Parts: sequence; C-alpha cells; structure tokens
Amino acid sequence: MQSETLKVAATHFNLGNQKMVYNELRKDYLLNRWVVIATERGRRPNDFAKPKTQPANNAVCPLCAGNEHMTPPAVLLYLKSNGDIVKDKDTETLRHKNWLIRCIPNLYPAFSPPQNPANATHIMKSDSYGSAIGHHEVIIESPNHDEHPADAELPQLKHLIEAYVDRLRDLSAKPYVRYVSIFRNYGKEAGASLTHAHSQIIATPIVPRTIAEEVAASRKFHSDNGRCVFCDLIEKEKRSPRLVHENSGFVVFAPYASVHPMEFWVVPKKHDMNLLKMGKAEAEGVAEILKASLKALKDLVNDPPYNYGIHLSIDENDADCYHWHLEVYPQLSIWAGFEKSTGMYINTVMPENAATELKKTIQAFNLKF
Amino acid sequence: MQSETLKVAATHFNLGNQKMVYNELRKDYLLNRWVVIATERGRRPNDFAKPKTQPANNAVCPLCAGNEHMTPPAVLLYLKSNGDIVKDKDTETLRHKNWLIRCIPNLYPAFSPPQNPANATHIMKSDSYGSAIGHHEVIIESPNHDEHPADAELPQLKHLIEAYVDRLRDLSAKPYVRYVSIFRNYGKEAGASLTHAHSQIIATPIVPRTIAEEVAASRKFHSDNGRCVFCDLIEKEKRSPRLVHENSGFVVFAPYASVHPMEFWVVPKKHDMNLLKMGKAEAEGVAEILKASLKALKDLVNDPPYNYGIHLSIDENDADCYHWHLEVYPQLSIWAGFEKSTGMYINTVMPENAATELKKTIQAFNLKF
Repeated sequence: MQSETLKVAATHFNLGNQKMVYNELRKDYLLNRWVVIATERGRRPNDFAKPKTQPANNAVCPLCAGNEHMTPPAVLLYLKSNGDIVKDKDTETLRHKNWLIRCIPNLYPAFSPPQNPANATHIMKSDSYGSAIGHHEVIIESPNHDEHPADAELPQLKHLIEAYVDRLRDLSAKPYVRYVSIFRNYGKEAGASLTHAHSQIIATPIVPRTIAEEVAASRKFHSDNGRCVFCDLIEKEKRSPRLVHENSGFVVFAPYASVHPMEFWVVPKKHDMNLLKMGKAEAEGVAEILKASLKALKDLVNDPPYNYGIHLSIDENDADCYHWHLEVYPQLSIWAGFEKSTGMYINTVMPENAATELKKTIQAFNLKF
Repeated sequence: MQSETLKVAATHFNLGNQKMVYNELRKDYLLNRWVVIATERGRRPNDFAKPKTQPANNAVCPLCAGNEHMTPPAVLLYLKSNGDIVKDKDTETLRHKNWLIRCIPNLYPAFSPPQNPANATHIMKSDSYGSAIGHHEVIIESPNHDEHPADAELPQLKHLIEAYVDRLRDLSAKPYVRYVSIFRNYGKEAGASLTHAHSQIIATPIVPRTIAEEVAASRKFHSDNGRCVFCDLIEKEKRSPRLVHENSGFVVFAPYASVHPMEFWVVPKKHDMNLLKMGKAEAEGVAEILKASLKALKDLVNDPPYNYGIHLSIDENDADCYHWHLEVYPQLSIWAGFEKSTGMYINTVMPENAATELKKTIQAFNLKF
C-alpha cells in the first residue's frame, strides 16, 4: 500500500500545467445541504490497520423465537394460524411463540409514552425544552436471527412493510405524536447494538428538522409550480444515469447530491405523503425492490453496514406537497471534523457510478420483476 | 454482560405504576437542532464483540520529520533558527527539515485552487451546482509523530494556534473563498486516516450550512437584543453546572444541547468573529485551555477518538453578531438511522454530568492557570 501511495503522490507532484479537473459541489434537491463529490479522496493512504470483522458473540439473543421472556410483551404480533396470517394486539400479558413479526417496546427508549395520554396534547414546555414523550419500539423482522432484507423471503419482507404501516397507523393517531420515524440499522458500524434482524420506530412530539425542511421546500415548490417536487423528480431521475431500478410501483435512484457513498432512495410512483393508504400490491412492490437493491449493495460492497430511514409526513396539511420515500445510507465513510462542524459533506463515490454498479449487479441477479 | 442485561430488563418490566422519569428534549442555542438526553440508553445490551484496539501499522509516516520528500512542498513552515522561530513562506521548491510546524497542500484535496485566481470571484455555476474551488491543507502539528494536543508542550501548541491564524489570514483573503474550516480528526473512528498529529484546513467557495444558520440566528439575536448571543452565553454558562474550565481569556463548557457524549466548546471571552486579531496572550490562552480539556477527556474516557472544529466568520458583516469558538466532539456513539434520516439526535450523557467529570479531572491534574 505504501508504494502505491508514493506513486500517487509523485503523479500529483508532476501535474504541472495540465488541465485541472475539479471536484463537483452539489446541493440536495430540497435541503440546503451541499456535498463535494471527491472521488480521488477514496485513494488516500491510511496508516491505520484494517478493521477486523467483528463476529457476534455467542450470548443468547433476546430477539430470537423462544426467548420472548427476555423482552417486554409485544404491542403487535403477526401469527401464523391455520395457514393464515393473524394480527394480534391482545398481547398485554401474553408472549406468543409462533410469531412471524413481533413488535415490542424498546427496553432502553429514547422517547416514552405520557402517563396521562388524554392530557398530553401540548407537551413542549418551551421552544427549547420538553420531555421526550413519544414511543420507541423494536420490530423484530423474523423469528430467524439472520433473516435480513437482502436475503429474506419476499412474503416475510412484505409482512415487515405491513407491520411498519400498522404501527405507523397506531402511533400517528396519538394526539401527542407529531412524527413517526421508521428506520433500520444494520451492522455495528451503522449503530446496531443487536445482530438479530430488526427495525425500529420512534414517535416524537415534534417534527424533526430534516423532515420539516423537506416539507417546507416541497411546499414552496408546490406553490411555485403547482405540482409535487418528488413526482417531478421521479420523471427526471428515471431518465438519468442515476436510475438504479424500477418496478410497477417504485423507482430506485442514487440521489444527485448523495452524501453517503452508494446512497440510494426508494420512491413510490404514487403520490402520497405516507404509507397509511398503501395496498397489498404496493407493500409487495416495495418489499421486492428493497430486497433487490439491498442485495445488490451487499454483493457489490461485501455486506456493508447501512442505515435506512423512511421520510414521511403525518400532517394532513402536507398531503398535496410531500411524498414519502425510503433513504438507504451505506456506512462506508466516516463523518469527521469538517462534516460535523460545517454540515457540508464529502462523498468519494460519484452517484452516477454508484447507480451504474448497483444497476449492473441487479441485472446480473436476473431477478424477475 | 448477558446476565446484567436480563437484570436490567427485569427491573424495567416491574416498573409498574412508579413515577415515570422522562428523557429531556433540548434545542441548541442557535440551530433548529434537537437532542434527546437519554442516559438509560447507555446501558442497553450489545451482542457485537468489542472493537479491538487498532494499532497503526509500521509503514513509514509521510508526515514525520525527515520524510518531507514524501509530501508536496510546504505552504508555510515554522523553523527554529538561532533559537528564534522564523516563519518561512518561500518554500515553493524547498523541503526544509528543521521545522516545528509544517503546512502542506492535501494530496487528496476535496477543494482545489482555481487556475486563474484573478477571474475566480464568481465560481458557483448555479444555486445547486459548482466546482469545488478552494483549498485543502494539512497542518503537521509537530515533527514528532505522537505529539497530540493533550500531551504536547504548550509552546508547540501555541505555534499550532498561530499557524491556524496564519493560514486563515492567507486563505480568507482570496476573493473566491467564503469560508475557512479549521478542524482536527483524532483516531480512526473519528475519520483520521494518518496517525501523525495533524489538523486540516479547508477553504470553501460557499458558507457552509451550519455556519450560515448560526450566523443568521446570531444576527437575529443581535438585532432583537442589541448584543452578541455568545457573549450572553458565556455569562450564563459560567454560572451553570455545565462549566468545565475557565482561564483569563477563555471559557470551556458542555453545551446545553450537546449532541455528542462529553461534547465541550472553547469560547473566547473577547468578542470577535474570527481569530485574525488574536494576540500572543490569547494564542497561549487557547492552547492552555485546549490542552487541559483534551487531557481531561483523554484520561476520563481512555483516549477516545474525537473531532474538533473552529466555527468562525470571515464576512465583515458578521463582525457585530458572530463570535468564533471551537467545538470538540468526542466520538463515543454512532449516528444511526434515526439521526441520519431526521436530523434529531440522541445523547446518552447528560451535559451537566459530562462537565462535572471533566472539571473534576482537570482539578485533579492540578494544572496551573
């Protein structure tokens, strides 16, 4: 590695009067967020040892089937009964074992329910302080420890999407809830603390900053142009070199100003501000395209850690202008002093190249859509 | 570890009708950025193996004294000559060896200088695209590989601060530069790619988002109240449980809405939007208090990775309202799907507790100020 470093350095020294090729500075579609696309920085030398693969230890997994006694009672179960899937919410004291999907309260919640829900509509104590009232749940995606989306069976992944919708319906109806964040952490470097396949849901008493800014920018676009900025975007990105994949209901593309290497978004073609009206075919469609994209990422970059998060609105005022979507952030670089202190990002992978590679990998699977 | 997990879980199950203690939701002084202070989450179980300490490999360090041929010529050197410190900028073709501080262009720059600086005042091509024109430099903090701030000699650390000011002066005077970010990455997990003690400077053609938002909020506070929000803050935090340390010129405190565990800020008592008018005593003062605080962090949390970044303005219009400071972000947690998709943060350490522990550790050093 060191000799390669020296060679690269020598080339740089001798650039002389050659035509300079600049990195690109790109702004996000909606946010005032800039990224430098700096592909050469991916080649810089590194004198830290490569991280070792971190195998999970052999402790008993509290999320595996059979260990329901290690967690609180479920708030929602999908059970297999006589071949049919049954949703069971009457689980206050029971711990069923034959479940397919199991949603439980997070034992270490960031947000907790109010003691008197009826009086809990106005909970922020000032414009800079409040109690973290809300909900924090874990959705166990499968009774099988390793059934992560890239490898999960499609029907199981469809159940997961339906569980997202069921919990979103329940949580968004509570008067003290202003936002519901549905997200997934995969791998230690992406912040997962347990290896069993799981997602999380956090319901918050305020609309988080990123969503508020996206909604404001979408509303401005809608009022200026009379249409949804995401509906527009889908048409543009479908014809761009950033398109990764498409099925009847969804488009996957690498966003123009990706801040993460290999970042991609899954966007529904049907305009809707959230998933509450999602039908069976759409749940299948998103499961299908998410599995294909995550499998491509896994094969292409050697099973990297990643996060995904759904962006949505539960405010009826946003129905016209906001459009839900799912953003996938592979964890392939580290935000350092520059990013953390400025809010400007450096991405070493050109989004167009990320899309090309992901697209090729999906085509190579020859998956049927 | 697993048995502890089970015990914690059992305690939680039996909470019953006990009085609920909520996590706090706090908003930043200036930014529309919220954090949940969730100390219990620090106790959640983790079935990943502990990361191994990553020793540096034994490759030749390109930043060590004697290896100047491995890097581009310096843009600024501090040389020791007859006992005096000499600043040398006439180094286009020379590679001096007897340096104390050495600033070089980054070989893998995110931003690069314009080919025709005279014509480079208007470089953004649209409101969402431009070339990444600017500068990206490395400041080698010492000829000694391991002379990091917590352990550096004070005079050497003072040279480092003076080098920041010298490079800031040079870069901020260029007509195409709108911002100069001075930052430091320590440790692999904080994004450092080389272990030799070094800082970085990036000059950008736009004002980054975080700074722009801080300036806008500071300007609003100034126009509403007729004074600087940071000058106000210093007085408040000096009397708060978040005070970490103070010397004649600087205050260190854990910010009210810290988004990083053990985060602290170094703020000058003298109002100034940047470091350009900094005198010798102030350079000594910031070196002194930065060393004490970083040494406390190192001793308290077992030499953790961290980033720091200076927030400043180079726009004369901000002279009244903006106040430079240095923010230190220990890398003790991972931003996951929730943080990345919402812009809302979870911090498992109460800022008041962080301040108390840092303060105690500094007092235990019995360092003289």
